[in-house]
Amino acid sequence: MTGLPRRINGFNEIKTRRPASRGAERWLGCPIKVLDHGFVYLVDYMGNDDSVVQAARVSYGEGTKKVSTNVGLIRYLRRHMHTTPFEMLEFKFHCKMPIFVARQWVRHRTANINEYSGRYSEMSDEFYLPDLSVIAKQSGGNRQGRDEELNPEQQARVRELLSADYTQSYAHYREFLDMNLARELARIGLSVANYTQWYWKIDLHNLMHFLALRLDEHAQWEIRQYAEAMARILKDAVPVCWKAFEDYQLNAIRFSGPEHKMLRDNRWPMSREDAYRMALTVLNQNQRETNEFLDKLYDLGFILSSTG
Amino acid sequence: MTGLPRRINGFNEIKTRRPASRGAERWLGCPIKVLDHGFVYLVDYMGNDDSVVQAARVSYGEGTKKVSTNVGLIRYLRRHMHTTPFEMLEFKFHCKMPIFVARQWVRHRTANINEYSGRYSEMSDEFYLPDLSVIAKQSGGNRQGRDEELNPEQQARVRELLSADYTQSYAHYREFLDMNLARELARIGLSVANYTQWYWKIDLHNLMHFLALRLDEHAQWEIRQYAEAMARILKDAVPVCWKAFEDYQLNAIRFSGPEHKMLRDNRWPMSREDAYRMALTVLNQNQRETNEFLDKLYDLGFILSSTG
Amino acid sequence: MTGLPRRINGFNEIKTRRPASRGAERWLGCPIKVLDHGFVYLVDYMGNDDSVVQAARVSYGEGTKKVSTNVGLIRYLRRHMHTTPFEMLEFKFHCKMPIFVARQWVRHRTANINEYSGRYSEMSDEFYLPDLSVIAKQSGGNRQGRDEELNPEQQARVRELLSADYTQSYAHYREFLDMNLARELARIGLSVANYTQWYWKIDLHNLMHFLALRLDEHAQWEIRQYAEAMARILKDAVPVCWKAFEDYQLNAIRFSGPEHKMLRDNRWPMSREDAYRMALTVLNQNQRETNEFLDKLYDLGFILSSTG
Amino acid sequence: MTGLPRRINGFNEIKTRRPASRGAERWLGCPIKVLDHGFVYLVDYMGNDDSVVQAARVSYGEGTKKVSTNVGLIRYLRRHMHTTPFEMLEFKFHCKMPIFVARQWVRHRTANINEYSGRYSEMSDEFYLPDLSVIAKQSGGNRQGRDEELNPEQQARVRELLSADYTQSYAHYREFLDMNLARELARIGLSVANYTQWYWKIDLHNLMHFLALRLDEHAQWEIRQYAEAMARILKDAVPVCWKAFEDYQLNAIRFSGPEHKMLRDNRWPMSREDAYRMALTVLNQNQRETNEFLDKLYDLGFILSSTG
Repeated sequence: MTGLPRRINGFNEIKTRRPASRGAERWLGCPIKVLDHGFVYLVDYMGNDDSVVQAARVSYGEGTKKVSTNVGLIRYLRRHMHTTPFEMLEFKFHCKMPIFVARQWVRHRTANINEYSGRYSEMSDEFYLPDLSVIAKQSGGNRQGRDEELNPEQQARVRELLSADYTQSYAHYREFLDMNLARELARIGLSVANYTQWYWKIDLHNLMHFLALRLDEHAQWEIRQYAEAMARILKDAVPVCWKAFEDYQLNAIRFSGPEHKMLRDNRWPMSREDAYRMALTVLNQNQRETNEFLDKLYDLGFILSSTG
Repeated sequence: MTGLPRRINGFNEIKTRRPASRGAERWLGCPIKVLDHGFVYLVDYMGNDDSVVQAARVSYGEGTKKVSTNVGLIRYLRRHMHTTPFEMLEFKFHCKMPIFVARQWVRHRTANINEYSGRYSEMSDEFYLPDLSVIAKQSGGNRQGRDEELNPEQQARVRELLSADYTQSYAHYREFLDMNLARELARIGLSVANYTQWYWKIDLHNLMHFLALRLDEHAQWEIRQYAEAMARILKDAVPVCWKAFEDYQLNAIRFSGPEHKMLRDNRWPMSREDAYRMALTVLNQNQRETNEFLDKLYDLGFILSSTG
Repeated sequence: MTGLPRRINGFNEIKTRRPASRGAERWLGCPIKVLDHGFVYLVDYMGNDDSVVQAARVSYGEGTKKVSTNVGLIRYLRRHMHTTPFEMLEFKFHCKMPIFVARQWVRHRTANINEYSGRYSEMSDEFYLPDLSVIAKQSGGNRQGRDEELNPEQQARVRELLSADYTQSYAHYREFLDMNLARELARIGLSVANYTQWYWKIDLHNLMHFLALRLDEHAQWEIRQYAEAMARILKDAVPVCWKAFEDYQLNAIRFSGPEHKMLRDNRWPMSREDAYRMALTVLNQNQRETNEFLDKLYDLGFILSSTG
Repeated sequence: MTGLPRRINGFNEIKTRRPASRGAERWLGCPIKVLDHGFVYLVDYMGNDDSVVQAARVSYGEGTKKVSTNVGLIRYLRRHMHTTPFEMLEFKFHCKMPIFVARQWVRHRTANINEYSGRYSEMSDEFYLPDLSVIAKQSGGNRQGRDEELNPEQQARVRELLSADYTQSYAHYREFLDMNLARELARIGLSVANYTQWYWKIDLHNLMHFLALRLDEHAQWEIRQYAEAMARILKDAVPVCWKAFEDYQLNAIRFSGPEHKMLRDNRWPMSREDAYRMALTVLNQNQRETNEFLDKLYDLGFILSSTG
């Protein structure tokens, strides 16, 4: 937690009788830079690791006495997905991001949002121009993701064309505003790479659900950067909850009913060929599902390396 | 704000960089007694009047500069039901109430709840026994409300019979626990007057919506006492938001389309007879709606007193 | 209900034991054209006017017998904002609209959405190009709206520049796809006028809330066209609910607490000067609020025309 | 699907252009008896297995063409918890259950509810009296559950005492109503075993989430009976979705990060002693978690039977 970003103004120390989190306090007003013009910083928060315990003890009353420690209780709750005590904490962020990222983000409906409005105010001239290193090919296997990089000439060409689009459409936008065209119409030629910003408030349980989805490798790389920024803050703000979240969700592995049955009915390890043949049968000849299963088995060392 | 209840332990002063509300700070941990064994107190909160302004200014950007003051902006937002900035504040209460009150309360689905569990823990021997003064007759006009009081003998009889039920069922409950009957079954003979408790967390917009419904004279008297306790706290915690809520919601009056038309097409005041006849026509002979309309007109002084 | 649009394929008549609405049946699969490339059509629905009554009678049991008719009960429920029975109906639409419209729409969080994904699939070359008649100036009074039209040269110029943006950015998009750039990146230069589409499902209560906000003159003209298309369908699908919604919400008028007090404490009509002076005092010198109040009074005929 | 309960009146066959489910049609209006006086029946529904596919194809467009079949697509969506297409179906039930069951049920906040109101209407004299066979001891290991049965004398005693409570409190309730005591007060002496009823409407995704929690052995036995009734209906109504739900959720098995690591870093099977010692270390000496892990390993046959 050394080397936090510089704090912006307006976060002055005062007194309160509310529970606080030392880790969260340090992040208040310290923006983490994301992508070329974006950021995330913590604006306000409510609660700390103990707030989860406090809420759980109301529910379970004397029943929780057996769980000796706060850490043990938090981990127990998370392990069994008793999620309501995690709803008792709130985090409020100020975020700035390209519109196409905001469009993915807003699908999480359990949060509160106040977004910058292009009807009331002028849009900025900031657009997301991807780094060369992330300008990559369409993935074959994963219909929605990226694969290896394009060649350098292509990468440069992508940035050049996008820049041309941004420059031209923003010049037109300025011309529209000079004509006094209604702002709500003037902005419709601006691209989804244009930056917007919002205040975003969410409880800890729903934030963890958001992060489980948006830290995943299937999430678009750009929104993942925002998820990682918030994860960094959470890790300091609620270290015990975060560790439980990592152990029981982020790093958990799941086997379906049919997979479970095949695991149970056989001796491991087995050869790739046998595993493949058997899995294909168990999983109704579904090629994709079979490959996913074998990846899990291989990772566990349950597949014998196929030596000659 | 003098004479607050004594604060319970665990609300010690520490430092924070978060925004605070002086009014809310004073209420932290100070239980307001409600009914015979219940209470409400503020456990935690996030934000103050300025948090509404801060969120609105993110949305409207430069567009809000014209509204000169924070008070003016908050009132403008509430007047036009731009409610999202009010979602940026949170309040967390510890509440203890009879189960039948909890059952009405929980219908507000936008809150977070951790309730005491009779499966994990023993239910207390506290039951709600109404004061003599609130033991009243079924209302005739209002299908769900109360009317004048029963006579004193009847009132005493009600308390006597309820007490008998409480005592007997709780004695049975104890006997069940002594047999080691599962707690989740042992409690099913206890009445809905038995007290439960919970942590309840909600944002300011949804809390105001809750209060608009539960401060209303159509709400059951018992839950209204809880609403009034929370209203007392809010009034201190967010005085500007509260005043706007009072002016634009609690004390607002509404006329339907047909009522509006009748108001517009006539000269006021008019006689009760004329108003009644006309309203009945405009409102499709609906007796109840006509009476409600006339009450509003009478209150406005738009009905001439029918002197002989 | 004559002259419905032609039904698309796949809506064949079969048998069911579910309640149906004749009005809704006629709209199934009949797209209403909106803007230049958009549409709205009804994909599926659950329930009809009677479903509201049925649900209310479960709640109120014998208590509802006094309300003699179904129409009377529905109107009573809507008048008193007993909204849960209206949640018992669902409507599912297929909608196609510009991204900037989708961004306003999605802020209604109580709906279910499946949107076309630019990560999985190619975006179409359709962009919203406003009709000359709606290309208008920024409104002065209303920070977010439009006012009178721009002059014809300016209007033509707006369409010309927008078209240039659309053409260029879409050509670049095609070039990106030809390079095999990941679709999720290729689309970021496309503007918020690009069309997207989704399935959108919502219950009747929340749909009415959506419409109350999006039929309002403060909503952006473009999203209002979608609201009006859905209103047309609802009017046929649940005629009794719709009429109650019109009478008690769309056409209702509201006076704040201070306005109510001024209405009550004076004799009407009065002169504009007197009304203005008094209102300004009652409303704490708030110019904007005073003007809004006077508009309501004037509309009611409560202000004397100021003849010499 | 033979031997369905008799259909109640009011579910007559008519024509519709909406998608239908043959399995769901058969269950419309056929009450499944639950507990001693309760029931569940399907009142209405929207959509079928194909509705999931239809919604997904809007999202993924051409991107879904690769998944050759509808069954394959539904299973793919469920496997990867792409849950929004499952929100596109709705089910509406009429349910009658003891108040203590309703109190657990209502914690699922994403459903729509219209409940019978004891303020408007008289409560019935029906109370839940458990069968002898389910009158069991408090579980030791599971703080919230039941264990082996009480002895027959105790079981009889439980029913006797509960009956006495029910009879007495209901007699008092009748006496209160005869006095014309307000219904909202008269009912407060009735126990949480008193039956209530409601209309309950929910989308398929949230219904599955409800069932995953309420079919679980940790759910109270009584609410599980309601979950099983609804599961029976769903299995017929959306057979493909149901099978995917069973395979990927109900019968899935999950290993935490630390468990995963221990699985990967060792050769299986191993002795109970070794597994226990190692797990205790990996799981930070948490006894309970270690036992849960060993249960999973034992079930998989990864623990050697400790023969002498």
